[in-house]
Amino acid sequence: MKLNFKQTLPVLVSAGITVFSTSASAGFSNEQLLSVLLGNGAITQQQHDELLGMTKDEEKKAEDMSANDIKVTLNNGSLKLKNKDESFKMQIGGRIMVDAASFDDGGNQYDDGTELRRARLFVKGTVWRDWHYKAQYDFAGDAVHIKDAWIKYTGFNDMLEFPLEVTFGNFKEVFSMEALTSSKYITFMERSMATEVFAPGRNIGLGFNTYGQVMDGGWSAAMGYFGHGIDDDDDGDESYGYVGRATFAPIASKTRVLHVGGAVEHRKWKGRNYRLRARPETHIGNTRIVDTGLGAVDDVTTWNFDTAAVYGPFSVQGEYFHQNVDSVAEGDLDFDGWYAYASYFLTGESRVYDVKHGLFKRTKPNSIVGKGGYGAWEVAARYSAINLNDGAIKGGRAQNMTIGVNWYATPSIRFMGNYVMTDASRSDKEDPNIFQLRGQIDF
Amino acid sequence: MKLNFKQTLPVLVSAGITVFSTSASAGFSNEQLLSVLLGNGAITQQQHDELLGMTKDEEKKAEDMSANDIKVTLNNGSLKLKNKDESFKMQIGGRIMVDAASFDDGGNQYDDGTELRRARLFVKGTVWRDWHYKAQYDFAGDAVHIKDAWIKYTGFNDMLEFPLEVTFGNFKEVFSMEALTSSKYITFMERSMATEVFAPGRNIGLGFNTYGQVMDGGWSAAMGYFGHGIDDDDDGDESYGYVGRATFAPIASKTRVLHVGGAVEHRKWKGRNYRLRARPETHIGNTRIVDTGLGAVDDVTTWNFDTAAVYGPFSVQGEYFHQNVDSVAEGDLDFDGWYAYASYFLTGESRVYDVKHGLFKRTKPNSIVGKGGYGAWEVAARYSAINLNDGAIKGGRAQNMTIGVNWYATPSIRFMGNYVMTDASRSDKEDPNIFQLRGQIDF
Amino acid sequence: MKLNFKQTLPVLVSAGITVFSTSASAGFSNEQLLSVLLGNGAITQQQHDELLGMTKDEEKKAEDMSANDIKVTLNNGSLKLKNKDESFKMQIGGRIMVDAASFDDGGNQYDDGTELRRARLFVKGTVWRDWHYKAQYDFAGDAVHIKDAWIKYTGFNDMLEFPLEVTFGNFKEVFSMEALTSSKYITFMERSMATEVFAPGRNIGLGFNTYGQVMDGGWSAAMGYFGHGIDDDDDGDESYGYVGRATFAPIASKTRVLHVGGAVEHRKWKGRNYRLRARPETHIGNTRIVDTGLGAVDDVTTWNFDTAAVYGPFSVQGEYFHQNVDSVAEGDLDFDGWYAYASYFLTGESRVYDVKHGLFKRTKPNSIVGKGGYGAWEVAARYSAINLNDGAIKGGRAQNMTIGVNWYATPSIRFMGNYVMTDASRSDKEDPNIFQLRGQIDF
Repeated sequence: MKLNFKQTLPVLVSAGITVFSTSASAGFSNEQLLSVLLGNGAITQQQHDELLGMTKDEEKKAEDMSANDIKVTLNNGSLKLKNKDESFKMQIGGRIMVDAASFDDGGNQYDDGTELRRARLFVKGTVWRDWHYKAQYDFAGDAVHIKDAWIKYTGFNDMLEFPLEVTFGNFKEVFSMEALTSSKYITFMERSMATEVFAPGRNIGLGFNTYGQVMDGGWSAAMGYFGHGIDDDDDGDESYGYVGRATFAPIASKTRVLHVGGAVEHRKWKGRNYRLRARPETHIGNTRIVDTGLGAVDDVTTWNFDTAAVYGPFSVQGEYFHQNVDSVAEGDLDFDGWYAYASYFLTGESRVYDVKHGLFKRTKPNSIVGKGGYGAWEVAARYSAINLNDGAIKGGRAQNMTIGVNWYATPSIRFMGNYVMTDASRSDKEDPNIFQLRGQIDF
Repeated sequence: MKLNFKQTLPVLVSAGITVFSTSASAGFSNEQLLSVLLGNGAITQQQHDELLGMTKDEEKKAEDMSANDIKVTLNNGSLKLKNKDESFKMQIGGRIMVDAASFDDGGNQYDDGTELRRARLFVKGTVWRDWHYKAQYDFAGDAVHIKDAWIKYTGFNDMLEFPLEVTFGNFKEVFSMEALTSSKYITFMERSMATEVFAPGRNIGLGFNTYGQVMDGGWSAAMGYFGHGIDDDDDGDESYGYVGRATFAPIASKTRVLHVGGAVEHRKWKGRNYRLRARPETHIGNTRIVDTGLGAVDDVTTWNFDTAAVYGPFSVQGEYFHQNVDSVAEGDLDFDGWYAYASYFLTGESRVYDVKHGLFKRTKPNSIVGKGGYGAWEVAARYSAINLNDGAIKGGRAQNMTIGVNWYATPSIRFMGNYVMTDASRSDKEDPNIFQLRGQIDF
Repeated sequence: MKLNFKQTLPVLVSAGITVFSTSASAGFSNEQLLSVLLGNGAITQQQHDELLGMTKDEEKKAEDMSANDIKVTLNNGSLKLKNKDESFKMQIGGRIMVDAASFDDGGNQYDDGTELRRARLFVKGTVWRDWHYKAQYDFAGDAVHIKDAWIKYTGFNDMLEFPLEVTFGNFKEVFSMEALTSSKYITFMERSMATEVFAPGRNIGLGFNTYGQVMDGGWSAAMGYFGHGIDDDDDGDESYGYVGRATFAPIASKTRVLHVGGAVEHRKWKGRNYRLRARPETHIGNTRIVDTGLGAVDDVTTWNFDTAAVYGPFSVQGEYFHQNVDSVAEGDLDFDGWYAYASYFLTGESRVYDVKHGLFKRTKPNSIVGKGGYGAWEVAARYSAINLNDGAIKGGRAQNMTIGVNWYATPSIRFMGNYVMTDASRSDKEDPNIFQLRGQIDF
């Protein structure tokens, strides 16, 4: 008996994004069904073999095609795509943060108002397994600020005993836990005055980082060489700096963390103008609570020490910063600052520590608004201080006390309320109390 | 008899984007086939049960996985993604509008030329069903203008008898049908002088809106509290305003619409500078046909009334605006303006009314260029007038008459031609006739 | 005997992105299996027909749905989506280029430093088969530069004997092989001084292009009418120009190319200010090596001639530019410039010629870093010269000699090193030697 029927049916369409049921059904395979039918005499051996042959051919084809299949997800609202072996990946997302602030200063120097604090889009991805990139742009204030624009290579991992990541482009210098923690995840609406003033932020450079496990936690180490940032329009050669940071966490589990870290940056400023100034832990309005004014400097050396601990829903975090400035006019100047805070999740969550980079990442609420839940609630308090007075430079001293309440409605949506009490030494500025609110989403 | 064959086949790959044929085939189910074969004695009861068991297990797995499946579409050229229960969605798109204009003014004040009128990208989405966001940025003129950057919550719908949407961030204040109708769908290349001058546009704020059915149509109501916009760089506390709008459409079918609406905004201007000015219903060049100049004002109260009707391919629309300005120097000032227009689709389409928001949305041509069709053709004429003279303020009076022809080549591609005849009272400016063209796509 | 079982199974979910196995399995079809079972008497004719009927219905449904299926790929890291008949397509991508440069000039005029040279995002697509668009924005330097923002129609191909593309919006005027070749694919880090100075770049306009086969290669022809660019803020009517280009390649295979081309642009400058100036084939710093200064001009006519040849891994390319300026103050002025270069792929690749547009496109390395390979290596040398002296205008003369090494780690990642030796006639500027590096990715 000869099988001789037309191959009438389009077997498989759309090779790209697909799943094939390569078996006769999603329940039993072609092979299984044919085997049973043959055993029962419902089909002959020849029929069995011919039908089975068709099956094998199709399986091979389907497997070849599925190697290129792209899996798409919208977890937490961010669009992620990857192929089967994850050698190619892409993610498209962004963040929106909307702020409002009111100042208790008689309306004189600080301006009540609203602000779109951050409005970002990003694309990040992986190509040929070992190459990674990220392009992130901020459009807040109707202006462009390039945040991340880097390429990373991780292919040394085949040769080396330890993980090594080499990154170049525009990205954050490795300095300060609070500075390195994403603005999506920081505990208060703004980073501390000291962090804002002393941490170098993003510049164009080349960086190396590695990490490992130790005791019940891990360690990380990173260093880099950075030129000036994207906004360098001054005449003269750019400044450049060396930076290094190491962190050590003897404990790093889901609910227990103990972290210490330190970093140092030395930058050749080459006689270019330099200035240190800070807003009072709000970003609304342009009035600075401390300000050294502008002056030419040769070298700037900054170091910091950070520590944090998580114990279930309770956590503490603190940093100390010190900066030595070799000023052309005033010689050696020393400035410093610090902050310390405590946070408590009323709803039982823990802050989530990233042991590979020595910073904090996304806290996911145990219950979600939109899935029958009420989100996560966190209360926190921070004290911060900064001293920009040295020698003839009177940048001012300031202390801020902040009380914060955060509501994590979903893993990607957070509402924040901060009450900031300021106390500064500059006689020409009032010391306002600030009440400010934020709503944010990342996708 | 014991079934004992190898589970050789990869059953399902790429869990992400997929469809599973959970039945034995796309024609009949495993269960159906097994039932027939059993009834005919081609397989035994035991074989039947074991094979059926495999089927049931796989069905369960497939169902679990498909709950996370993301469906991707490119309808009208815009990329949309959503999961199965639509609790997560994302859309990526944008618009391009290219203009050219020629002025019949002896080449003196108005500059012939070209312009990229709008160049936008947006990402919008839904997360955890009840939360929505949109980020839309315009890059026309080699500058950033944040258009939409908002977060919306719709989860009250479980508790309330009526739909309630709460939105915060940067978005359009609810005021004026023409202002609220997307630039993709407005009938003429530019909104009327009065709409441009008096409608508040986008600001950072908090809004509430609801809607319902009534008679053969529906109604909508919205209110909001808004600070200043993103571009606020002035010293001093921001201005803030309250706005409300209600619309009523006793008829709202596909081809018949009768709409009336009204809105009012009261804004505390706090002595900041204020100015009213307008181009002559073109966006090429910077010359204004009316202009009050700058002055400090305390309060501004604006109200409007809009109405529209659709009768098959024929439609009319009109609005009246009135603004009271409490000027620091000049006291109470009153300005106003209005427009009215008629449109007719030669190819039989009707303008499409959005009853939930009291505005117009996308008209889809009955035939499409690229699918053997010729698109939709619309002719329209508008008369608009504005009066910015009051007391000592001589901002000027102006009337424009515009004749327009629109060709909707596809649902997302439109070509527009406008001929605008201007007549203004300012002696230092000519009254040009303007011929202008636009090509636009949205995706 | 009557088939009467419940239709219990969800047959197909997620209509969007899917493949259906429209046959009973991926190996043999429902029809085939039923035919065999019927022939063997395992099922009756009635059972056969009823089950077959279900199959046919489902096939029809599946086919309807799969017409809307979207195929997603991440080839070379760029996200591409298309439907089955490719009448709708979208691509999302971008590029990052990071540069560093050091000048051997005693640190006086040229500033050592780093730069994010390009930071782009784009969306391009096709809608209703015949309509195409591209929106590409550059954010380098924390500023917006709209690159591409155009709409293209290709639907005339049904009516005409030859391909015709009609494009409007902001795009590159067809002029100069090096100017038209993407910055992703140019052989040196910067285009030659002459190309930078004389090629018109992108403007807002309307263009037509066509192409065909001839001998062992092909030809292309394009023309356009362009207004001024996006950055026109000057008073007065815009300048406008006509441009045309034709190319001829008697040989155009994968490893052998012979190309000649020429273009001319005539632009009505209308007495507006005009200036020619160039950096020394680096983009770091703002110092110009040649500069005519500003002056009012009436007409500018530019023509060029380009030629290139590929012979396996070896290639040469050269262009000559000539510009006649009708200056208001100085009358007729003539400027010119040229470049010539040779390139050789040590790893055997050939430069890839785009015969439809007369330019070069992506070279893919034979081996890829990340897939066990070492990439492609290319060495190249270029000589370029420019003369901006004529009559009373002393813009200067300059020659550059550049040695370049390119490493194509993957098809989308390239590292470049250039050493540029400059020799200029301006007495107020040094003639620096420049060492510069680039890392780039496109996605």
